Amino acid sequence: MSTKELRSRPIVAVHTGDGKGKTTAAVGMALRAWAQGWSVGVYQFVKSAKWRTGEQAAFAALGGDVTWEKMGTGWSWSRAHTATDPEGAAREGWGRIREGIAAQRHRFWLLDEFTYPLAWGWVEVDEVLEVLRERPGTQHVVITGRRCPQPIIDAADLVTDMVPVKHPFTQGQRGQAGIEW
Amino acid sequence: MSTKELRSRPIVAVHTGDGKGKTTAAVGMALRAWAQGWSVGVYQFVKSAKWRTGEQAAFAALGGDVTWEKMGTGWSWSRAHTATDPEGAAREGWGRIREGIAAQRHRFWLLDEFTYPLAWGWVEVDEVLEVLRERPGTQHVVITGRRCPQPIIDAADLVTDMVPVKHPFTQGQRGQAGIEW
Repeated sequence: MSTKELRSRPIVAVHTGDGKGKTTAAVGMALRAWAQGWSVGVYQFVKSAKWRTGEQAAFAALGGDVTWEKMGTGWSWSRAHTATDPEGAAREGWGRIREGIAAQRHRFWLLDEFTYPLAWGWVEVDEVLEVLRERPGTQHVVITGRRCPQPIIDAADLVTDMVPVKHPFTQGQRGQAGIEW
Repeated sequence: MSTKELRSRPIVAVHTGDGKGKTTAAVGMALRAWAQGWSVGVYQFVKSAKWRTGEQAAFAALGGDVTWEKMGTGWSWSRAHTATDPEGAAREGWGRIREGIAAQRHRFWLLDEFTYPLAWGWVEVDEVLEVLRERPGTQHVVITGRRCPQPIIDAADLVTDMVPVKHPFTQGQRGQAGIEW
């Protein structure tokens, strides 16, 4: 491959581990993508669609071709679901991402907390691997979350394990605006 | 301490380790701080002042009370310096940060790649510890870079070690726009 080909090779990146920085680092990458003028899609598999982060507000202020969606809401990390069908919602969310990747909707994709529906078997790992492998054009995909399934790690180009050395939550501190969201 | 006090307790965070995501995660935190309407100061101890990242362009587009400066330029990670006095430049850069912290110039500080001048003894670790410990008001400080000196880690509230599991550079790929800068 030529240098140019290498430089434009689409990558799959995974930010996993129990430490902080998985989502924030992915959002930092999204900023870089935005600055290149790329279409950016952020799809968050989050507990509640009402959860609105500072990052989302910042991207709304930036403008440009940015899509920011909450997918498959209603589940929680403890699996104590409040929604009627969080599994179906997650599956539907992934279905839309799959269609978007086939249509090359974005050049930069952030699938935030996507490891949870994968780890729980709500979304098929094999199907995700196939969609990533077959994706057309130059689409970068960043997946974040704890306990990333090994086949996804094996298929990724760039994997970082965020390891907590020290965390204020373990010292009795609560989350706070501007730092945790 | 009350919940409110805990929630507004200023923190020192360190992103260290050989993996990706140290700076990008800190920039993501800066976005959150920006979204809170806080004054944000990003001070990068970088090789060259000409190095302009996508993040910087994005913050310029966001506007608000954001300062983004390159401090103590001219050194390199390999210590093969090109500038006349990179050590003096780093020291001067730190001096301005120290004054800014005393004056409560920002509510959120990002001292990017600051571990290098610390690790090389260009900036005194003890002096930095004192400035952090004595800082007035509610100023959050995030320090990034490899090989963070242990006393800084000991003094920090939140420490994440970014561990590389897989990196495209180790597989022959070059850095690329939108991903690496």
